[in-house]
Amino acid sequence: MREKILKIAKAQGYIVNSTARSLRLQRTQSISVVFPLGHEAEQPLTDPFFVQMIGYLANEITQRGYGLFLQKVLPPMEDWLSDLVASKRSDGIIVIGQSTEHKALEAVAGKYTPLVVWGGQIDRQSYCTVGSDNIAGMRLATEHLLSLGRRNVVFLGDTKVPELRLRYKGYTQAIANAPRGTAEKRNVSTHMTADKAHEAMRAFLATGEKFDGVVCATDVIAISAIRAIVAAGKRVPEDIAVVGYDDLALAAHTNPSLTTVRQNIEMGARHLVDLLFRRMEGEDTESITMAPELIIRESSGGRRRVSG
Amino acid sequence: MREKILKIAKAQGYIVNSTARSLRLQRTQSISVVFPLGHEAEQPLTDPFFVQMIGYLANEITQRGYGLFLQKVLPPMEDWLSDLVASKRSDGIIVIGQSTEHKALEAVAGKYTPLVVWGGQIDRQSYCTVGSDNIAGMRLATEHLLSLGRRNVVFLGDTKVPELRLRYKGYTQAIANAPRGTAEKRNVSTHMTADKAHEAMRAFLATGEKFDGVVCATDVIAISAIRAIVAAGKRVPEDIAVVGYDDLALAAHTNPSLTTVRQNIEMGARHLVDLLFRRMEGEDTESITMAPELIIRESSGGRRRVSG
Repeated sequence: MREKILKIAKAQGYIVNSTARSLRLQRTQSISVVFPLGHEAEQPLTDPFFVQMIGYLANEITQRGYGLFLQKVLPPMEDWLSDLVASKRSDGIIVIGQSTEHKALEAVAGKYTPLVVWGGQIDRQSYCTVGSDNIAGMRLATEHLLSLGRRNVVFLGDTKVPELRLRYKGYTQAIANAPRGTAEKRNVSTHMTADKAHEAMRAFLATGEKFDGVVCATDVIAISAIRAIVAAGKRVPEDIAVVGYDDLALAAHTNPSLTTVRQNIEMGARHLVDLLFRRMEGEDTESITMAPELIIRESSGGRRRVSG
Repeated sequence: MREKILKIAKAQGYIVNSTARSLRLQRTQSISVVFPLGHEAEQPLTDPFFVQMIGYLANEITQRGYGLFLQKVLPPMEDWLSDLVASKRSDGIIVIGQSTEHKALEAVAGKYTPLVVWGGQIDRQSYCTVGSDNIAGMRLATEHLLSLGRRNVVFLGDTKVPELRLRYKGYTQAIANAPRGTAEKRNVSTHMTADKAHEAMRAFLATGEKFDGVVCATDVIAISAIRAIVAAGKRVPEDIAVVGYDDLALAAHTNPSLTTVRQNIEMGARHLVDLLFRRMEGEDTESITMAPELIIRESSGGRRRVSG
């Protein structure tokens, strides 16, 4: 009967206004995927991590017959999340990165359940996250350089956002347990865009301070750091060993290839969507922390360079 | 005054329901980006071309303060576009690839103007497209192999969708004008996914038919073809030269690196968004055909292999 009516309605030129329909049904058949850029307004959505994440999310979400509504949120950040929830524009929300918005996420999580966040797990956090074990990951990276005899390893990155703060913590743990003769922890601060990271490394090299290893908060930062080091006439890894974090698709193809900590982005996207749909059904779900994996390539000196 | 009322309303706990609001304003502040997969239901949104395109589009669209609504459309394809238009879910529509949907696009283009399509320009087409000159591009690729002495060049690809049909046409034009002794045109048909293309090349190699060059409809197909050729114990480019089409980010990093026809995806995304926003303002815009560029790397034998 319903079929028949729809057929007749269509034949008569009736159309479905999805906006009016979703107002009636309280369902939009779409998922919001939001990138809060409170920490870094200049980070483009063409950032390689974002692009890989969007591709996997788009695949998972559209396979379930839903559309994705992609948005970035720039400062001033006031009320963006509660406004998005109140707008009823989507049936659930995935937030990529906590950015500076831990409080906003906390404020909303109590009232709105279909919400999942890619990011670092923090103490007494009430929202549901998916991410890698950032502390363990960066500890692995730092210990790797120490095990290769590096004694003056700096951390290149921002510590404003939870994931990166956790990575810095992993670095400091490794340095605290390092062999005697290892230099104190040292944070060379940088923004997360390729250009800014290049400039930060260049400026640090220009100070003449001694260092023989860099653990970088992300692969994008690491790749820029390598460029800056080579441009300053030094060799990677012979003079300065470099490790990244992410294992982006391009990390295997840089020259030298990048030693890095793998976050399985495809698996992460699958977890995000799976948890979100379970939460949309009313289930309460735990956060997921994925084990990091150290991928040893050439930039750390942990593997002989391969030519050809 | 308006500010004041909004402030009081917010303080009193009033919220804006964007669904109700867009029903009233007839504006959604979002752009639909649609992937019709009538030709290839299995093509994932993680396809490298799609991913690069989504990244650039997301950047351009969000920079203008709009969100993107991403959807894929699978067979049966009936009425998807007119339904999407009628749904009033977005202020404009970008369609990535004509797929099998030329007629659907034609049917809607006359009534609905804020519509731009990534694809090939076809005779008597009334909708607005952005794309590369597919005929000229594949003619360049084929002539390149002929100029290097290859006399038995096959086309590996699908001819069901307009862009690829145009690329096949460019190939046939080059073969028609080839030096004496060149083999007739030959289309080895394949689906567009990496696995299917690998299987198509493997099966063709198994026939034992002679060929010394392959022009491929896309880079994804070319990269799979190289894998199949090498797995069959032949060398690329010495035994069989291979050329792709797209110049994806990864084309420079394959081994051997891929000779290909560059479509400037970043520029294409910018054109798509620019034209769409002009059409949303009521302007009538012409289609844009971007000049293709042959990028000579190792897989065609046009450049010496570089090691290190």
